[in-house]
Amino acid sequence: MIERLAVLGVGLIGGSVARALKRAGKVRHVVGYGRNRANLETALSLGVIDEIAASPEHAVEGADCVLLAMPVGSMAETFSRIATHLAENAMVTDAGSTKQDVIAAARRGLGGRIARFVPAHPIAGAERSGASAAQADLYDGRSVILTPQPENEADVVAAVADLWRACGAQVMEMTAAEHDRIFAAVSHLPHLAAFALVDELAARPEAELYFRHAGSGFRDFTRIAGSSPEMWRDIALANRADLIAELDAYVARLTRLRDALAAGDGNVLFDSFVRASGARSNWAPAGTHLENDE
Amino acid sequence: MIERLAVLGVGLIGGSVARALKRAGKVRHVVGYGRNRANLETALSLGVIDEIAASPEHAVEGADCVLLAMPVGSMAETFSRIATHLAENAMVTDAGSTKQDVIAAARRGLGGRIARFVPAHPIAGAERSGASAAQADLYDGRSVILTPQPENEADVVAAVADLWRACGAQVMEMTAAEHDRIFAAVSHLPHLAAFALVDELAARPEAELYFRHAGSGFRDFTRIAGSSPEMWRDIALANRADLIAELDAYVARLTRLRDALAAGDGNVLFDSFVRASGARSNWAPAGTHLENDE
Repeated sequence: MIERLAVLGVGLIGGSVARALKRAGKVRHVVGYGRNRANLETALSLGVIDEIAASPEHAVEGADCVLLAMPVGSMAETFSRIATHLAENAMVTDAGSTKQDVIAAARRGLGGRIARFVPAHPIAGAERSGASAAQADLYDGRSVILTPQPENEADVVAAVADLWRACGAQVMEMTAAEHDRIFAAVSHLPHLAAFALVDELAARPEAELYFRHAGSGFRDFTRIAGSSPEMWRDIALANRADLIAELDAYVARLTRLRDALAAGDGNVLFDSFVRASGARSNWAPAGTHLENDE
Repeated sequence: MIERLAVLGVGLIGGSVARALKRAGKVRHVVGYGRNRANLETALSLGVIDEIAASPEHAVEGADCVLLAMPVGSMAETFSRIATHLAENAMVTDAGSTKQDVIAAARRGLGGRIARFVPAHPIAGAERSGASAAQADLYDGRSVILTPQPENEADVVAAVADLWRACGAQVMEMTAAEHDRIFAAVSHLPHLAAFALVDELAARPEAELYFRHAGSGFRDFTRIAGSSPEMWRDIALANRADLIAELDAYVARLTRLRDALAAGDGNVLFDSFVRASGARSNWAPAGTHLENDE
């Protein structure tokens, strides 16, 4: 049982952890902090949190569990501010979409308290944002990836794993480097590629003409271009090296298709499309009703 | 009333036209031809067509309306074969996703009969293919774009427009060049981009690891990578010039994001993501239950 949970960033992700732990009867009191006061008032009135803290430092005072659920670009400052205010045995976890960058920030900010921080990435999300979008079942059946640190003792890793399992999630572990490499390819690159396509069309004088004729292929390809610009700027910068490598590989592959087109070489196109179509058709996303997971 | 409709290519697209016209009571007899005999037998047994023709030449004999609904790469040969077998007043239309290339093939193949051919592109489709997937309501509320030729007389354009309207579609007109330019951007490029991403991951030794962690953003971005390799090879080659221009613009934009990342310039990323996110959120695809339209 968590006696006092501090949620720093009470949006969809943080608010849903609070709701899920309440549903599971695993938390007694939730204190929330965030930049947007109106959102915190909403969270309080909806029962997502039980108390509003005036600062991150106040939020973590006396908390036995701390969750960082803000955009990853804001985590460095938060780690620094809370370090000397953490209770002796507090466990700390986060919900950031990148891990090496968050861990580096935690090492700088938390100093000797790094052993109590177990990095996590819940593979979940939804179109809506803010505390009003928080839902107790957001993590049911979804994956949460932990990237434990050498300093973490087994008990704190187990406790953080239990927390995420109590939210309904399946917990798995990998290294932070492996995590960032995989998600650069399957999540961060597709987001940049979707943003780039929409921006390319939106920048044209005849943008309206293009959008008017866009159909469901375009709709699905670009759905994630409706995501939060701030969140994705932070993720892209935080996972810069892996993302650049993925962009280079992707551009090289697009260029090969372009050269085949210019040469009128239908075989190169056909072989690539056959491989892609086969792989895509054989791929069954984990959970058939997976919706909006990032 | 169409007395005898020849459907050349009795798949989802051609079969659905037959079903839709039967539903509307606008056709008396449908004769079908296609490469796959088993598919034709299925079409016959399901009542999608009333008769199987042994060749395209036989199919069009005595038909007052002819629909070409095969992959665009196969249309040139078909135009050549049917030219001298068309009835005097037969009207001809097609359902190809590219228009300038199909028109060029029709001019070569049909010769003096070109005045009776009114090119069309129905913006509709579905995941399933073949005659068994044909449905009478596939075109309900969807757009069909006509790109009439200088030789077309008003009466044949009106008759072909009536045919597509009888299928439930909304008909609009534009030039073939404008059509190909728009669909290169909003349909053909996204398909190549989705194929390229999946092929890039599928080609890696650790492909399984990547796919295992891919979520719903990846799922939607790559849905169209499950499309027919043959159909999309043909479309890409047929609309090569416009598609190359779009690929170049897209690669240039991805490269700008890449350079901003390398420079750690979050503002360039943020501004691009804001423009894209705003445009994507403001875009309402025509018809809220648009599904799988290409």
